[in-house]
Amino acid sequence: MLRLTAPGNDRLLQSPNLKATFGGGEANVCVSCARFGLKSKYVSALPKNSLGQKVEELLLGQKVDTSAIAWCGHRVGVYFVERGANQRGSTVLYDRKNSSISEATPNNFDWDKVFENASWFHVSGITPALTESAADLTLYAVKEAKKRGVAVSCDLNYRKKLWDYGKKPSEVMPAIVENTDYLIANEEDIQLSLGINFDADVTKGHLEASDYESLMKKVSDKYPHLKAIATTLRESVSADHNNWSAILYTNGKLHISKKYAITHIVDRVGGGDSFAGGLITGLNIYEQPQDALEFAVAASCLKHSIDGDWNLVSKQEVLSLMGGDGSGRVQR
Amino acid sequence: MLRLTAPGNDRLLQSPNLKATFGGGEANVCVSCARFGLKSKYVSALPKNSLGQKVEELLLGQKVDTSAIAWCGHRVGVYFVERGANQRGSTVLYDRKNSSISEATPNNFDWDKVFENASWFHVSGITPALTESAADLTLYAVKEAKKRGVAVSCDLNYRKKLWDYGKKPSEVMPAIVENTDYLIANEEDIQLSLGINFDADVTKGHLEASDYESLMKKVSDKYPHLKAIATTLRESVSADHNNWSAILYTNGKLHISKKYAITHIVDRVGGGDSFAGGLITGLNIYEQPQDALEFAVAASCLKHSIDGDWNLVSKQEVLSLMGGDGSGRVQR
Amino acid sequence: MLRLTAPGNDRLLQSPNLKATFGGGEANVCVSCARFGLKSKYVSALPKNSLGQKVEELLLGQKVDTSAIAWCGHRVGVYFVERGANQRGSTVLYDRKNSSISEATPNNFDWDKVFENASWFHVSGITPALTESAADLTLYAVKEAKKRGVAVSCDLNYRKKLWDYGKKPSEVMPAIVENTDYLIANEEDIQLSLGINFDADVTKGHLEASDYESLMKKVSDKYPHLKAIATTLRESVSADHNNWSAILYTNGKLHISKKYAITHIVDRVGGGDSFAGGLITGLNIYEQPQDALEFAVAASCLKHSIDGDWNLVSKQEVLSLMGGDGSGRVQR
Amino acid sequence: MLRLTAPGNDRLLQSPNLKATFGGGEANVCVSCARFGLKSKYVSALPKNSLGQKVEELLLGQKVDTSAIAWCGHRVGVYFVERGANQRGSTVLYDRKNSSISEATPNNFDWDKVFENASWFHVSGITPALTESAADLTLYAVKEAKKRGVAVSCDLNYRKKLWDYGKKPSEVMPAIVENTDYLIANEEDIQLSLGINFDADVTKGHLEASDYESLMKKVSDKYPHLKAIATTLRESVSADHNNWSAILYTNGKLHISKKYAITHIVDRVGGGDSFAGGLITGLNIYEQPQDALEFAVAASCLKHSIDGDWNLVSKQEVLSLMGGDGSGRVQR
Amino acid sequence: MLRLTAPGNDRLLQSPNLKATFGGGEANVCVSCARFGLKSKYVSALPKNSLGQKVEELLLGQKVDTSAIAWCGHRVGVYFVERGANQRGSTVLYDRKNSSISEATPNNFDWDKVFENASWFHVSGITPALTESAADLTLYAVKEAKKRGVAVSCDLNYRKKLWDYGKKPSEVMPAIVENTDYLIANEEDIQLSLGINFDADVTKGHLEASDYESLMKKVSDKYPHLKAIATTLRESVSADHNNWSAILYTNGKLHISKKYAITHIVDRVGGGDSFAGGLITGLNIYEQPQDALEFAVAASCLKHSIDGDWNLVSKQEVLSLMGGDGSGRVQR
Amino acid sequence: MLRLTAPGNDRLLQSPNLKATFGGGEANVCVSCARFGLKSKYVSALPKNSLGQKVEELLLGQKVDTSAIAWCGHRVGVYFVERGANQRGSTVLYDRKNSSISEATPNNFDWDKVFENASWFHVSGITPALTESAADLTLYAVKEAKKRGVAVSCDLNYRKKLWDYGKKPSEVMPAIVENTDYLIANEEDIQLSLGINFDADVTKGHLEASDYESLMKKVSDKYPHLKAIATTLRESVSADHNNWSAILYTNGKLHISKKYAITHIVDRVGGGDSFAGGLITGLNIYEQPQDALEFAVAASCLKHSIDGDWNLVSKQEVLSLMGGDGSGRVQR
Repeated sequence: MLRLTAPGNDRLLQSPNLKATFGGGEANVCVSCARFGLKSKYVSALPKNSLGQKVEELLLGQKVDTSAIAWCGHRVGVYFVERGANQRGSTVLYDRKNSSISEATPNNFDWDKVFENASWFHVSGITPALTESAADLTLYAVKEAKKRGVAVSCDLNYRKKLWDYGKKPSEVMPAIVENTDYLIANEEDIQLSLGINFDADVTKGHLEASDYESLMKKVSDKYPHLKAIATTLRESVSADHNNWSAILYTNGKLHISKKYAITHIVDRVGGGDSFAGGLITGLNIYEQPQDALEFAVAASCLKHSIDGDWNLVSKQEVLSLMGGDGSGRVQR
Repeated sequence: MLRLTAPGNDRLLQSPNLKATFGGGEANVCVSCARFGLKSKYVSALPKNSLGQKVEELLLGQKVDTSAIAWCGHRVGVYFVERGANQRGSTVLYDRKNSSISEATPNNFDWDKVFENASWFHVSGITPALTESAADLTLYAVKEAKKRGVAVSCDLNYRKKLWDYGKKPSEVMPAIVENTDYLIANEEDIQLSLGINFDADVTKGHLEASDYESLMKKVSDKYPHLKAIATTLRESVSADHNNWSAILYTNGKLHISKKYAITHIVDRVGGGDSFAGGLITGLNIYEQPQDALEFAVAASCLKHSIDGDWNLVSKQEVLSLMGGDGSGRVQR
Repeated sequence: MLRLTAPGNDRLLQSPNLKATFGGGEANVCVSCARFGLKSKYVSALPKNSLGQKVEELLLGQKVDTSAIAWCGHRVGVYFVERGANQRGSTVLYDRKNSSISEATPNNFDWDKVFENASWFHVSGITPALTESAADLTLYAVKEAKKRGVAVSCDLNYRKKLWDYGKKPSEVMPAIVENTDYLIANEEDIQLSLGINFDADVTKGHLEASDYESLMKKVSDKYPHLKAIATTLRESVSADHNNWSAILYTNGKLHISKKYAITHIVDRVGGGDSFAGGLITGLNIYEQPQDALEFAVAASCLKHSIDGDWNLVSKQEVLSLMGGDGSGRVQR
Repeated sequence: MLRLTAPGNDRLLQSPNLKATFGGGEANVCVSCARFGLKSKYVSALPKNSLGQKVEELLLGQKVDTSAIAWCGHRVGVYFVERGANQRGSTVLYDRKNSSISEATPNNFDWDKVFENASWFHVSGITPALTESAADLTLYAVKEAKKRGVAVSCDLNYRKKLWDYGKKPSEVMPAIVENTDYLIANEEDIQLSLGINFDADVTKGHLEASDYESLMKKVSDKYPHLKAIATTLRESVSADHNNWSAILYTNGKLHISKKYAITHIVDRVGGGDSFAGGLITGLNIYEQPQDALEFAVAASCLKHSIDGDWNLVSKQEVLSLMGGDGSGRVQR
Repeated sequence: MLRLTAPGNDRLLQSPNLKATFGGGEANVCVSCARFGLKSKYVSALPKNSLGQKVEELLLGQKVDTSAIAWCGHRVGVYFVERGANQRGSTVLYDRKNSSISEATPNNFDWDKVFENASWFHVSGITPALTESAADLTLYAVKEAKKRGVAVSCDLNYRKKLWDYGKKPSEVMPAIVENTDYLIANEEDIQLSLGINFDADVTKGHLEASDYESLMKKVSDKYPHLKAIATTLRESVSADHNNWSAILYTNGKLHISKKYAITHIVDRVGGGDSFAGGLITGLNIYEQPQDALEFAVAASCLKHSIDGDWNLVSKQEVLSLMGGDGSGRVQR
Repeated sequence: MLRLTAPGNDRLLQSPNLKATFGGGEANVCVSCARFGLKSKYVSALPKNSLGQKVEELLLGQKVDTSAIAWCGHRVGVYFVERGANQRGSTVLYDRKNSSISEATPNNFDWDKVFENASWFHVSGITPALTESAADLTLYAVKEAKKRGVAVSCDLNYRKKLWDYGKKPSEVMPAIVENTDYLIANEEDIQLSLGINFDADVTKGHLEASDYESLMKKVSDKYPHLKAIATTLRESVSADHNNWSAILYTNGKLHISKKYAITHIVDRVGGGDSFAGGLITGLNIYEQPQDALEFAVAASCLKHSIDGDWNLVSKQEVLSLMGGDGSGRVQR
C-alpha cells in the first residue's frame, strides 16, 4: 500500500505536504527478514502502473525477491497516517478497497514459483479482512504451503475498520489457523478472530505478561498443532511513550521477554510487523525460543525509532540492543 | 495575526524557512467554538489585502461567520514564534503595532449586525493592551453586548511585552471586567490587571489547585457580579513537559479539574485560548460546572498536541479524552 | 567541516534531503566564545572553493575573526549525521580524509598574525587524530602559543573512528598536554589518550561525579602544570534523554556542577564543544571556578536544545538558566 | 478528488514528497465562479471522513456553498500528477474508482435544495465516464435542472482512461447534451462523445480557429437547441509552452478570441475547467458573446500560471489581462 | 527588510511555507559592492531584536561593515513577494510602516563614523517615500556626505504604493538630487520624482535606448552638476522573459549597453539595486564609462538568475559575461 | 558518487538544504540500459558504509545487477551541483579524491564474474582522470573484456577539473581507445584526449552536424578498428535552452539525427551518459545505425527533463518521442 503521512505531528492535510512511503503487513515482514539476512520473497498482487512499479523498485532495493508478484488489478491500496502526540493517538485512514490484492484469485499466481525453495510462509489477518476473495486466496495459499511442507506463520492482526464485506473474522480466521504453525496474536485478535475470551483492559496502560499464560494455554488447547504462539505486549502510556515486550508460548512453556521503555516514539505503525519479521528471523537463526523472542522484541523496539512502515535497521543493531546497549549513545 | 514559526526547534531564522499560519486570541476562540458545534462569529478588523483575505478564507474553512469583520486599516499584525525545548523556552516576538484592530474604532463596526442572534460575546485582554483606541473599542463592545443582554466572557491574558502605550492594565481592565460575566484569569493576570495580590511562584513547576481558592474568593468579593471565574494551572516542568489542569469558581464553590501530564508538547501557543473556547462551549452544552470545566481542560490538553494556534480537534475527540482514554493508541 | 544531517529521525538518506550546516571542534568553540562576547579568531585551513567561502561567510556572521584562516588544500571535510531516538543512538559517518586542515603545515600560517592580541588558544584532540602532519601542526601551534605567553586549553576528544594513520593517541597527545594549561577530558579520553586508567561503565546511564576525583588527581599528578582539568558527565538514558553535568578540578579541589535532566534532546553533536566554549568564557569572566563551571554546564545544557553544531544561544540565556529558570516557559 | 502532485518536475515518487490539493471538474468550475463573484454551490458526493471534510473546508474558504453536498459513500477519489517538461508531457494517474460520486444515486440528493435559487447548472462529461450510476445521475440532474428552468452547461471533457464500465461515451453523452444549453467541447470530445467527425491533428502544435467553424455548424445542426458551443484551442509546442485561445459559436456566428502565448506553464491541469468557469461567468456578466469569450480565455490563460486545479486569480486580474496588460511586470 | 517569498510560483500563502531572506535597496547595493571587492558599509537603522540581529549577521557574512548601523526603533520592515509567471506579474506587498529606518532621525547616527574613510555614498528614493522624517534624514545624510567631499549616488526608485504620508516625490526628491553626483532613474522616476516628462509606454514590452537621449538631456539641463545619469531599460515580454540593457549619459554623451535576453527569470526583485551596485563598482574600477555600464548591466543581468534580493555572484562571473560568455554551459 | 544539489536555482548552500541522489558515468549508463530492458551490471568499487550500501540499494531498485561491485576503499565520491539559469551556467564542484574507485586495483575484482554472460562493456574517460591506478584499472578492464570477446564502448568525457595527477589524457586515453569498438566523443574530447584537432567554437551556441564529418574521418583514420564513432551536438543558447542532436559515423557514413529544441532544461547533468546508455541500447535493438542514433538522441533529449543523473524514462516514452510526439501534451 501507498502510505501517505502528514508531516511532523500535523493533522491530516493540515499542511498540503504528504510523505509517500510504502507499507503493508506482508511487505513489512519481507523487508525485515531480508534486512536480517533471510532470503525473502514478496507474494502479493500489484497493478501494472507507476505506483505498482515503485513498490517493486523499493522492495528490490531492500533485496526482496519480487519475482512472485502477481501483476493484475487496478490499484495500489492507499492509507493515510497522522502521527498523534501525548493524549491524541495516531490515526490511520484506510482507502484500500479494490486494491489489486483484494481482487486477486489463486489463478493470478504461479504457486510452484511462489514456493520454489521456500521453507517458511507468512500471512496476516489483514488480507482476509478485505474481501471474500482475499480471504479465500489466503486460505488457498496456506494450504498450498502446507501441501509443500512449508512452515506457515500467521499474524491475526484484527482491524476493526476493515471487516465489512459480510463475514466476521471468527468465520474466516480459524480455518487459516488450522493451517498455521506459528501464530502471532494479541488478546483482541484472539477474542475476535478465534472467539477465545480474555479480560485485559487494553486502555489501562499496563499489562502483566504472566496474565497471558492462561490465554496462551486456551489457544494451544484449541489448536494443539500450533508450534508456538506469540503476543506483543504494548503498554500505551501516551502516543509518544509505550512500553514494549512480548511473550512466546511454545512446548507448554511461556517465555517472557525483556521490557523496553520507548519514551519518544518516532513511528509505531508497522511495529507489529517488525515483531513478526524479527520472530521469523529469530526462530530461524536461534535454537532457544527465548533468544528468538528477544531478537524479535529488540528488533521491533528499534522499529519505534524509525519513520515509516519498514524497520530500516541492521541485524547488528538488533544484536547490540539485545546485548544490552540501549543507551542511545552517539556512534562515531 | 499572521504567525510565522521557525521549523522544528530551530531558532528564529536559523534556516530561511518559516511556516505561516494565523492566530490571535479572538480567532482562536472562535475556531474552537465553531469546531465544537457552536455558531461562531469573528468580530475584529482586517485590512483589504491578500493577508486579510487569507484570514477570512481560513476562518470560513473553519465555519466561522466572517460577516462582521471590519475591513479597515493597513496591516495584519505579525508574530514570530520559535519553539523551545527542554530548558529553553519558546519565544514570541510581536510585530503587531499599527495592525487594523489596533487602529479600529466603534465606527468601523455595525453593532446590530455584530450581535445579531448572539447570546455570548468573548473578549481578551490582549486587544486593550495594544493601543488606547483598542482599549476603548473593547470597552465599547462589551457595553454594547451587555446592553443587548448578551453574556460576556473575558480572558485577561496579561502580556508584558504589549502594554507600552502609556496606560497600565490596572487602569484599563477593571472597567471591562465590570461588564463581564465569565472571567478567565491566572494569578499573574489577576495581580497585574486587577490589582489583587497572590503569592504563587510560577517558575517552581508545581502549583496546588486549592491554593487558588482564596484568590478566587478575593476576585469574587471585588466583582460580585461575576458568574464564574476560571484559571488554568500550568506546571512547567520544561518546554516539552507541562502538567495541565484548571479550576472553576462559581456560586462560591471551587471546581478542580483532572490534571493531565503533557510530556511531549507539540505547540503550547494558543493553549489558553483553547481553554477559553472549550469553557464557553462547555458552559453552553453542560449543566454542571464540573462538566464544563472538564470539557475545557480536555480540549486544551489536546491543543498542546496540535501545531499552530488553532485547536484542530473534534468535539468527539475531546469527549473521548474526558471519558478517560488518554492512552494515545492508534485509531484504525 | 560540512555537516550533512538527515531530516528528523530519518536514517541517513532514507529520504533524499540533507540539511547542510558547518561544524567541527575548533569552529564550534570559536562561535560559542564569540556569541558570549569574547573576541574570537578561527585558526584552521580551508580550500579556496565555494564550500570554504561558505564556512568563512557563516563564521563572519557569528562575529568570528577569519583573518588567520590558511587558504590551502583541496577540500572541506564532510560528516554525515543521523539523529537517533530512544534505544537507537545517533550516528556520525566521517568523510574528512584529505581535508585542508589534515594536509596543512605550519608554513601555511602566519603565526604572528595568528596570535596577535591573543590571550587564549584552544585546540582539540580531533585534529591530531587525522594525520601525522595535523598532529605535528597541533603540537607546533601550542608551542607557538606557549612561546608567546598565550594560555592553552585542550579538549582531548578521543574519536575511535579517526585514529588510523598509524600512531596511537597515547603517542601523540601527551606532548600536546605538556603544553596545555587547561585540559578537558572525559574518562575515555584520559584512558586512551593519556594512558591513565579509570573504571566507569559509560553504558550504565549513571555516573557519580565524586567517582572522578581520584581520576582527576591522577591526571594532575602526572601533569602538575595543569591549571585545571574539566570533565563533562553525560548519563545517557536514551538517545533522547541525557542527564548532563560536569566537574572542574583546580588547585586540588573538585567542583561539581548542578545536574540538568535533558529529556528531549534536539541535537547533542557539538555538546562537548559547547562546554569547552562555555568553560573558556566562564574562566575569562568569573573569578570563582564554580561560577565558570556552572556557566559552561548551563551553556552546554542549552546546546542540546539547538539543532546543529553551533550553540546559538546568548550569554543572557545562559545566565538565566544558571540563575535557576529552566522551566522552559514561553518568553513573550 | 484528492490531487497528489510530485514536486517540481519530478517523476511520480521520484522523491517521497507529494503535494496534496483538491480538484476535479465540478469543484474547479465552482471555485472559478465564486472567485469571480457568482454565488456558487457545489453539488457532488463526499464521504464522511477527514478527506471529505477537508474538501468542504477548502471549498468554504473559496466561498463556495457546500450545503448541497451528499455525504455518502466511502472514498474521495485520488489522482496523481507529475509535471512534464519540454518533450515529456505531464501525466495523470487516476485512482477514482468507487469514489462517493461514482456510487451516488439521485436519492442521495435533495433536488429542491440543490436547485434553490439556482439559475445555472454545470456538468462535465467526466462524471458519466466513471460508472453507469454516475452517468444516470448526471442525466437525472440535468433533467431536474431543465424541469426547473435552470440553464445547463456541459463540458464534454472526454477522458480515454476513464470510460471502462462497458458503455461508450457516444451511448451516454448525447442524452445529456439534449438537456444542455451551453456546450463546451473540443474536436476530440465532439468526435468521441457525440460521434461527429473532424480532422485536426492535435499533435501538430498548431490549430486554426477558423477550421472549427464547420465543425461547430455540424454540432449546431445536430443539436439546434444549443444556445452556444465553445471550444478551447490549445497549441502544444511543448509541455512548457502552449498557445491558448478559444472560439464561441452562437447564433450562427463564430467568435474567435485573442491568442495568448504561455511560454512557461506552471500547471495546465484544470485549464479547461478554468475556461468553463470563466465562460459561465462571462456569459452572466457580459451582453456580448465576444466579451464573455475573452473573459473566459483570459481567465484560463492565467490559470496556466497557477499551481493546482483551482484558478486562484481575481476578477480584477482577469479584467486587467483582457484589457491588454500581459507584460507580467511587478505589481508594487 | 524581512522579505517573505511564497514558494515556486505560488500565490501568497497558497501554501503555508514562506522563505525568509532580507533585502531592501541600501542593503542590496552594499552587498553587491562588497562582493565585487569594494569596502562597503551599511548605513541604516535596525531594532535590537532577533530580526535586526539576523540582518547584521547576514550582512557580516557578505563582508559588509555593520558598525554604522543605528540600533533604534521597534521593527524590521516586512515585505511579501509572490513570483508571477507568464502574463501574471509578480506582486510585492509592503508592510514597512513604522520600521526603524522610517522613524530614525539624524541623531541616531554618528556621522563622523558613518563617513570615516568613505569616498562614495549611495541613497535610494525608497527611504524618503516612507515618512517625512525618513525624507529629512536622507536629505541630511546626503548633505553630510557632500560636506565631507564624498561622492553621492541616488537611485530615484519611485514606488507608487509607498508615497502616502502627505508629500509627493516631486516635493522631496529634487532637493536630494541637488546633492547627488550620480543619478539612476528610469522614465517613470524622472517624471514623477523630478517632474520631467517622457512618453514611453512601459507596458509595450519594447523600448528604444536612443529614445532616452532627449530625456537624459532634459535631466542634465535641469541638474547640470550631475556627473552621470543612468537608466535601466527593461522590456517586459512576460513575467518570465525580460530583455535587459541600460544607458549611461555622461559628459553629454549617451552610452548604450549590450542587451541581454533573460528568458527564464528566477527573481527580478532587486534587479535595479544590482544595477546600482554594479554601476558604483564599475565607475570605481573602470576609466571608461562604457566599461562601467557594461559591468553594471552584466552584473544585474545575472541577478535575474539569482533568488532573493542579493546578487550572489562574483566579480569573476560578471567579467566572464561581459567578456561574452552567456551560453550558460556547465562549469566543471 | 553522491550528488548533492542545491534546491531550485539556488547557489550552492544559499539555503541549508541539499538534495542527495547518486550519479556518475558508469552508474548512469547502467541505469539507462536497465530501464530500456538490457541486462545491466555495475562494475565499480564502493566502500562498506551506509553511503555505499545506499548506492547498491538504488541500483537494485533500477534492476541493475550489483554482484560485481568491489567492496573496498573508504569513501563514496561526492559532487555538488548548483543549477544555473539564463546566462549563468550550472556548476559542478567535485570532491571525489580518494573515492573507492580511485584507489581500486584489478585485484579488487573477480574478472570472470564481472564478464560472466557479458556481451558489451562500457567505460568512460572520467575514471582514468582520477588517479594513475584508476587509469591502469580501466585499461586492464577493457583488455579483459576484449580478451573475452566482449564489445567495448568508451565515452571519452574529458573533464578539465579532474586530470591533475600528473598525466595528460592524451597519454592515457589512446591505449584505452585501442581496445574500444564504439567511441563516444565530442570535439573537445577528441582534441584533448586523442590529440586530433578540430575548430568549432563551443560557446557560439550553434554547431553544424556536417562540420563534424571531417573530424570523424580523422578519428576513424587513426583508429580504423572503431566500429562507430558518435558525437553529441549541444548548442547552448542559455543554461535553460539547449538544442540537442547527435551524429554517428560508421562504415564510412555519417548519420545525422533529428535536432530537438530543449527550451526549459530541468537538469542537463548526466545528459551525455543518457546518450551513451541510449546508444548502447539502440545498437543492441536496432539493425539500422540511424535508428540506434535516433533512439539515443530521443532518450537523452528526455533526460534533460528529468532531475538527477539517472534518465528515469521508459523505453516506451523514448519510442513515442522518436515516433514524433514531442508536443508534451498531458497523458491521461
